[in-house]
Amino acid sequence: MPITPEQQDEIDQQRANPRQTLRAVSEGMEAHLYTAHQVLDHGFVRVIDYMGDDSAIVQAARVSYGAGTKHVQNDEGLIRYLMRHWHSTPFEMCEIKLHVKLPVFVARQWIRHRTANVNEYSARYSILDREFYIPQPDALAAQSTVNNQGRGAVLEGEEAERVLEILKSDAGRAYDHYEAMLSQDGQQGLARELARMNLPANIYTQWYWKVDLHNLFHFLRLRADAHAQYEIRVYAEEICKVVADWVPFAYAAFEDYRMGGATLSGRALDCLRRMLKGEDVTQESSGMSKGEWREFEAVLRSAD
Amino acid sequence: MPITPEQQDEIDQQRANPRQTLRAVSEGMEAHLYTAHQVLDHGFVRVIDYMGDDSAIVQAARVSYGAGTKHVQNDEGLIRYLMRHWHSTPFEMCEIKLHVKLPVFVARQWIRHRTANVNEYSARYSILDREFYIPQPDALAAQSTVNNQGRGAVLEGEEAERVLEILKSDAGRAYDHYEAMLSQDGQQGLARELARMNLPANIYTQWYWKVDLHNLFHFLRLRADAHAQYEIRVYAEEICKVVADWVPFAYAAFEDYRMGGATLSGRALDCLRRMLKGEDVTQESSGMSKGEWREFEAVLRSAD
Amino acid sequence: MPITPEQQDEIDQQRANPRQTLRAVSEGMEAHLYTAHQVLDHGFVRVIDYMGDDSAIVQAARVSYGAGTKHVQNDEGLIRYLMRHWHSTPFEMCEIKLHVKLPVFVARQWIRHRTANVNEYSARYSILDREFYIPQPDALAAQSTVNNQGRGAVLEGEEAERVLEILKSDAGRAYDHYEAMLSQDGQQGLARELARMNLPANIYTQWYWKVDLHNLFHFLRLRADAHAQYEIRVYAEEICKVVADWVPFAYAAFEDYRMGGATLSGRALDCLRRMLKGEDVTQESSGMSKGEWREFEAVLRSAD
Amino acid sequence: MPITPEQQDEIDQQRANPRQTLRAVSEGMEAHLYTAHQVLDHGFVRVIDYMGDDSAIVQAARVSYGAGTKHVQNDEGLIRYLMRHWHSTPFEMCEIKLHVKLPVFVARQWIRHRTANVNEYSARYSILDREFYIPQPDALAAQSTVNNQGRGAVLEGEEAERVLEILKSDAGRAYDHYEAMLSQDGQQGLARELARMNLPANIYTQWYWKVDLHNLFHFLRLRADAHAQYEIRVYAEEICKVVADWVPFAYAAFEDYRMGGATLSGRALDCLRRMLKGEDVTQESSGMSKGEWREFEAVLRSAD
Repeated sequence: MPITPEQQDEIDQQRANPRQTLRAVSEGMEAHLYTAHQVLDHGFVRVIDYMGDDSAIVQAARVSYGAGTKHVQNDEGLIRYLMRHWHSTPFEMCEIKLHVKLPVFVARQWIRHRTANVNEYSARYSILDREFYIPQPDALAAQSTVNNQGRGAVLEGEEAERVLEILKSDAGRAYDHYEAMLSQDGQQGLARELARMNLPANIYTQWYWKVDLHNLFHFLRLRADAHAQYEIRVYAEEICKVVADWVPFAYAAFEDYRMGGATLSGRALDCLRRMLKGEDVTQESSGMSKGEWREFEAVLRSAD
Repeated sequence: MPITPEQQDEIDQQRANPRQTLRAVSEGMEAHLYTAHQVLDHGFVRVIDYMGDDSAIVQAARVSYGAGTKHVQNDEGLIRYLMRHWHSTPFEMCEIKLHVKLPVFVARQWIRHRTANVNEYSARYSILDREFYIPQPDALAAQSTVNNQGRGAVLEGEEAERVLEILKSDAGRAYDHYEAMLSQDGQQGLARELARMNLPANIYTQWYWKVDLHNLFHFLRLRADAHAQYEIRVYAEEICKVVADWVPFAYAAFEDYRMGGATLSGRALDCLRRMLKGEDVTQESSGMSKGEWREFEAVLRSAD
Repeated sequence: MPITPEQQDEIDQQRANPRQTLRAVSEGMEAHLYTAHQVLDHGFVRVIDYMGDDSAIVQAARVSYGAGTKHVQNDEGLIRYLMRHWHSTPFEMCEIKLHVKLPVFVARQWIRHRTANVNEYSARYSILDREFYIPQPDALAAQSTVNNQGRGAVLEGEEAERVLEILKSDAGRAYDHYEAMLSQDGQQGLARELARMNLPANIYTQWYWKVDLHNLFHFLRLRADAHAQYEIRVYAEEICKVVADWVPFAYAAFEDYRMGGATLSGRALDCLRRMLKGEDVTQESSGMSKGEWREFEAVLRSAD
Repeated sequence: MPITPEQQDEIDQQRANPRQTLRAVSEGMEAHLYTAHQVLDHGFVRVIDYMGDDSAIVQAARVSYGAGTKHVQNDEGLIRYLMRHWHSTPFEMCEIKLHVKLPVFVARQWIRHRTANVNEYSARYSILDREFYIPQPDALAAQSTVNNQGRGAVLEGEEAERVLEILKSDAGRAYDHYEAMLSQDGQQGLARELARMNLPANIYTQWYWKVDLHNLFHFLRLRADAHAQYEIRVYAEEICKVVADWVPFAYAAFEDYRMGGATLSGRALDCLRRMLKGEDVTQESSGMSKGEWREFEAVLRSAD
């Protein structure tokens, strides 16, 4: 269980005391505030704070473009225009602060997104809890045979059992050893900053993560993508739902232009133009490599 | 006047409709929201939105340090500790969004602070207003004779008059020419993106500027400093007052450790230790250059 | 003339003394080092230093992917793969340092690219030269009538003459007044940090600008684009030529996937699939707005 | 041993082929290029590339300050001035690229420095080596009893043996299990991206890390500090030696103003002024908290 009764009490208290503000308010986001959305076996994502809404994006764009824009477009149209033309600065005017509990190996991918503010639980200073990510059977995937960086079929039978047994027993032993090394009962007790080094990467950590909407969209495009590792993708997908409630116009534009869109090269566009004129273009006549052609075909086919 | 009656109406409307929120609320900041604080002759700073308060800083620090910190220190003590030890990430958990109207030459200094989000009024897209910064007589300073990058005494008499006359007449003429070049009355009209190049750097622009509290403190330390150019310092000072009302503990720590503090070199500390033992240290025996020694003496003397 | 004989002498000296290094060397870039490429009437771009080459990109990618990649692909194929899949970190391993002389209104656009290092000539500290950008007749464009942020036809006849006369005489007068205000001949002399505010935005400034290749590509994609303002585009185009000689594989991939490519939305891809099946899709049946449809049609047509 | 004979061969080859360049060359750095400096039991730091030298810092500063600075100061004096006055942009004009092999728990601290470029070995894509950090006996420290985030005395006797035994056997078992789960011998083989999660944080990873000199100094100030965790401090100290050979003036200024210096608060400066006048200031009369006073006393005493 990701949330203890004490934590749930704290969340309930945080949600019990509305106050007055003159700031922009997103009703969709108010409904999410503080609530923990479970992810994986012990993880969660919850919104701690936010700044701005769809109108804040429009307002910032109109500061840039001045009076001229006022009558031109409605809010949704303007937001779609900004997204389509990569005008990213108005999206930077919205900000979100999340509290995330996640396995260390997921945190290691996540932190590569540098344009964000982070306060992580310090295992130099404090003692980690006995919580490890143990995959569900259907998330226990074999190495892909076609892609070095991917998963194939789900492991079955004895192999799956052996793997789960290893993960569980190693996690348990590692935590027992962690406690044994830290213990000051009849011994000095190893420094926390050293003892943590023996813990495996599926132990849970937690952090506050604050990011602007433009950089969050960049994160979501990469991490909610079908090629992202499952264990970070489930966090990204949970965040997508929150963002859809927070800034519905911006999220719809993001879905259409980024998640559902594709970037085609000059060569690919050229092939496309020939195909639309009726030419039967093949990989050989395309000028593309085999890999590129395969990806190009997938784009043309993908909604089938 | 920096604010037109129409703008004041808009501000009054923005302040007239409080809404409910579950987020952290800073009462000090609510009192500032949307209100324009006049700076220079036509400029202003006003708060459009904010995220977090003193408690948000503490909360983020406690995520990092875990349960261990809970009983150790009160909020103010913890914030002072964080500031003293350059633990900057908890301060990054607060965010502010300002609407600023400012002369272009001030904007050019300001924008050098890269870790911020900006949407500036576009003079490619829209037409700038006829508003120029003309200094007050007591801000009309001569070039410093001791410091290439500074001001000396205030200009007096005829010289001051000549300078003001130049600034006013050049600004007026530049704007007349701007309108004449843009005009589509009996002619094609020059592109806005070209016509703007003839406008002097004291014309006003405006932008939305969003920044986290850590980076804002960095900006304020440099720009509210006595060595900053007067025309940006007055903006920084106005922002300081707002921040003091927003996060009083953090601002007090900032004042003590950053604005009121000083960084001493290893050599300076060594001299200090000798002086405290009664030695009469001079520039010659200090190992410092003349410039360094002068600055060191100023630090030791500065509250006199 | 952008370069004085003294500056040319300095450049010749810088180019006269090759030294030995064990670092990666790009012969294409060595040929450019220090040489000033003229841009606009008084501006230039010149390469002051660089780090890395195409091999450095490949090398960094192979650190990430380990031994597995070694036999898979040749360098060019790997670089194309990285560009296609938005793997940006290997491109960040190359760095370039430019010395640029440019009008202030161009500098104001340029500086909005935040992920770069900049040292600009300080007009607080030093005195600017009497050099202003005066457009060539064929760059003197009218305001676009279809696009607020763009240019239409070239100005002609008397109107062009009037505009040039304004630009020249205002620049001359502004500089005369600048000198008059600064003068310490029989008067105190206005502070440099104040006197500069009367100078128009077509005066030239200069800076050192250092950026990694990934962020440079981002800059070039926006600023070498047909929609960029002409006066910054000519700088971007000059830099494109330099980059093509520095990292030929990376530049070719950038040209194909970024400059020559296009991002299509989910809706646009859907229309495309219907068109390839023979359907006659119109704006009405596309689900796109008129603006979006117009841009979509332009992509499908653009090489005609 | 951190370096295999094959790797040493590769380094020897990289060092065997000097080429000609027109760029700034630092002889001190050329001597370091590619060579692996051992850190911890299996780690290393080696310089892969660099840009600039002390002169590049001076050159960039002089672009900012113009002709006026040319005769004022010699290079060393100017660099000290820049460091003292926090003029950070000229230091950003130098860049270094390192290849680092380091334990994952060290990498997790290191990566928190966001303003850098990183390419890390991917354990999604490739298989990690069987190399774990096992502390030397004198680095096996007990938890500090006065500071939650620190180390006390070295563990002794049986306790030390028990800890080492745990670290060694757990590392060995974890790697055996990693191989067993990955194996495709008679089974499907778990995906690499999953198998890695069972590995403890003392396994080694490696990356290319590229950073400018200003941000490197910031990293070194925090990580070469006596309060930094020993296991990252040894990397920082090794890098300090390299930087001292690369940019000797800048490094000396950094040592004096940052590593050897101290920042004193307004309260502390006030106490100091009173002490220099002969007053016997105590914690009670200082206005400081006990912790702050203790740190203040340590600064005044520290060279004894």
